Amino acid sequence: MPELRRDPIIERWVIIATERGARPSDFKHPAAVVDSSRKCPFCPGNESATPPEILAYYNTERSPASVDLSGTGSPSPAPPSTAIPVGEHTMRGVGAGAPDSPKAEGKKNASGWTLRVVPNKYPALKMQKTLDVQSDGMYDCMNGMGAHEVIIETPSHTEQLDEMNSKRVEDVIRVYKERIIAFKKDLHIQYIMVFKNHGRAAGATLSHPHSQLIAMPIVPIRVKQEMAGAKTYYDSRKRCIFCDIIREEKLKAQRIVGENDSFLAIEPYASRFPFETWIVPKTHSGHFEEIRDNEVKNLALIMKSTLGKIRRFLNNPPFNFIIHAAPVHEPGIVYYHWHIEIMPKLSQIAGFEWGTGFYINTTPPELAARLLNRK
Amino acid sequence: MPELRRDPIIERWVIIATERGARPSDFKHPAAVVDSSRKCPFCPGNESATPPEILAYYNTERSPASVDLSGTGSPSPAPPSTAIPVGEHTMRGVGAGAPDSPKAEGKKNASGWTLRVVPNKYPALKMQKTLDVQSDGMYDCMNGMGAHEVIIETPSHTEQLDEMNSKRVEDVIRVYKERIIAFKKDLHIQYIMVFKNHGRAAGATLSHPHSQLIAMPIVPIRVKQEMAGAKTYYDSRKRCIFCDIIREEKLKAQRIVGENDSFLAIEPYASRFPFETWIVPKTHSGHFEEIRDNEVKNLALIMKSTLGKIRRFLNNPPFNFIIHAAPVHEPGIVYYHWHIEIMPKLSQIAGFEWGTGFYINTTPPELAARLLNRK
Repeated sequence: MPELRRDPIIERWVIIATERGARPSDFKHPAAVVDSSRKCPFCPGNESATPPEILAYYNTERSPASVDLSGTGSPSPAPPSTAIPVGEHTMRGVGAGAPDSPKAEGKKNASGWTLRVVPNKYPALKMQKTLDVQSDGMYDCMNGMGAHEVIIETPSHTEQLDEMNSKRVEDVIRVYKERIIAFKKDLHIQYIMVFKNHGRAAGATLSHPHSQLIAMPIVPIRVKQEMAGAKTYYDSRKRCIFCDIIREEKLKAQRIVGENDSFLAIEPYASRFPFETWIVPKTHSGHFEEIRDNEVKNLALIMKSTLGKIRRFLNNPPFNFIIHAAPVHEPGIVYYHWHIEIMPKLSQIAGFEWGTGFYINTTPPELAARLLNRK
Repeated sequence: MPELRRDPIIERWVIIATERGARPSDFKHPAAVVDSSRKCPFCPGNESATPPEILAYYNTERSPASVDLSGTGSPSPAPPSTAIPVGEHTMRGVGAGAPDSPKAEGKKNASGWTLRVVPNKYPALKMQKTLDVQSDGMYDCMNGMGAHEVIIETPSHTEQLDEMNSKRVEDVIRVYKERIIAFKKDLHIQYIMVFKNHGRAAGATLSHPHSQLIAMPIVPIRVKQEMAGAKTYYDSRKRCIFCDIIREEKLKAQRIVGENDSFLAIEPYASRFPFETWIVPKTHSGHFEEIRDNEVKNLALIMKSTLGKIRRFLNNPPFNFIIHAAPVHEPGIVYYHWHIEIMPKLSQIAGFEWGTGFYINTTPPELAARLLNRK
């Protein structure tokens, strides 16, 4: 019999259609296709096809090339590229754009990098001097103030996050953190979202591995709902709902797909999609950028293992992941807890889901966890 | 410069990326593909491939074959099928399952019908004797009480709603109304949603033209948000926001794609998707099933013209439409106004949209209206 499950945070119900069963053959779908690398603007050698880089990491012990805090200024020159093989690379903390960031001679916007951050060539939002809110008849609008950046995770056109050396996954995580810290200084910015689209069916227009950051002047409705749901729970119980979920899931031990000292990876109780997976830090924290060094290491490890299980079991499915975190200017949040939501895109979202915000999932999360744990 | 627009009802913002321009070539996408009709369970002759029909209309002046109010009982036999050509068909009001509905001899679950309603073979929800709400550790669940029906709009495997004779589109609309009225009698049912998925990219698994109805035991979160937004507007102004939108759009006359005595079709100010189109009744009404006979006629006409413009301009795009209406047990609603939202699916929904509930639309609705009005 189908079962309706309520998401404990948002008042969102999911129909778990257990009856239809779920055999591996049900998960056939087109794998994320790799397009040709010849004209890929994210591949080494094609650096001029993107707007000038904001930041790049090189195969060197030196600090990153530059950090442009505003997302708009002209970046400083890069350190020389040296040909240290991928995997031997180590990196230092990003200088957060302090005026004394090391300037370096050498080839900026040229190959040799291991990770590169560039403005999106077709930005959804752009930095403006002022935020201009207006009425338009009975409606409201504002100028598209904000920023949209691309984090090119690897020089390789095909290497996925789970295949990368863990040190380089740590670099990706540190760049997320540093770019968030940089944008947080602008008081017009209310929310910063970091996310990844992998595969065309998940909305990626380029197959070269990359993630994105959008800094925006409003707190989006989905984030407000999640904050409100978590606050309601906290107000009545004085406990963080995500901390409670961690306890509950460890007790039940039916939906866990990974764990280390700092993180738990689970198939959530009211999963909207087959194989939806959340990675939750064990230490309470509302903001991603509060992540500490040992957590960066452990996050790299659990992301590699979790994305690897999903890729192997589902044969390189299209997916999105999104870092869910509190709005940047909310200080010391006791009721909200940042986490990462990974959503494989195995089927199309249809009218029912659009109309209701209520999902039909044919794979119970308990089954999804069992299947992923075989890989 | 990109512009952020606020949806006047829900606190949802949309980025209108006017800068990227929009030429007809930008709207290239795979057309909705028609799969083979050979084994189509919705084609005449294959009636045994669906669960037994709940209701069917025939090419005759007689009343519909039967109306099974419960959605579960065994239907009464059908009237004889007579071979009146499509287009000459007229039909009478559905008997709403009154015990004196005309019984008729003849071929039930056999060809000859012009419209057929069947239970979904793989229902998301099923009628149950009781609604059983339980806790599951810290979580909540309930049994999947409800119903899921398919409205097969035409015996033709390929004929689209906008190509059908308007009398037969009226039949489809009347069947929506009558099935809603039937399910409304069950007090466990809190919400009834009627929607259509056209094309695989919009979630349709069968290409034969059909719509769906899901009756469910809870009011979905998206509906609650829309109701709450409309109520907030009403509470401060004592006016229905949709009635105000009609006035505003007629005054501005920049986003209208169709109008008749009873309905206005517009590209909404904060369109989430290129060519998103709403059809709004001019007379205030919260519930779709309150639609009157002259409105049924006018709705058929405006649906035909609007869906025709979308199909011709966008070359048969995949789309969803959803009837947005108030929860069934809310009486005499002054602040909410039913309407239909049509959403062409020209691109994939990516991580950004999922994470935020905030959309990037590259086609301003004013441009979409101009382009559609050429067709």
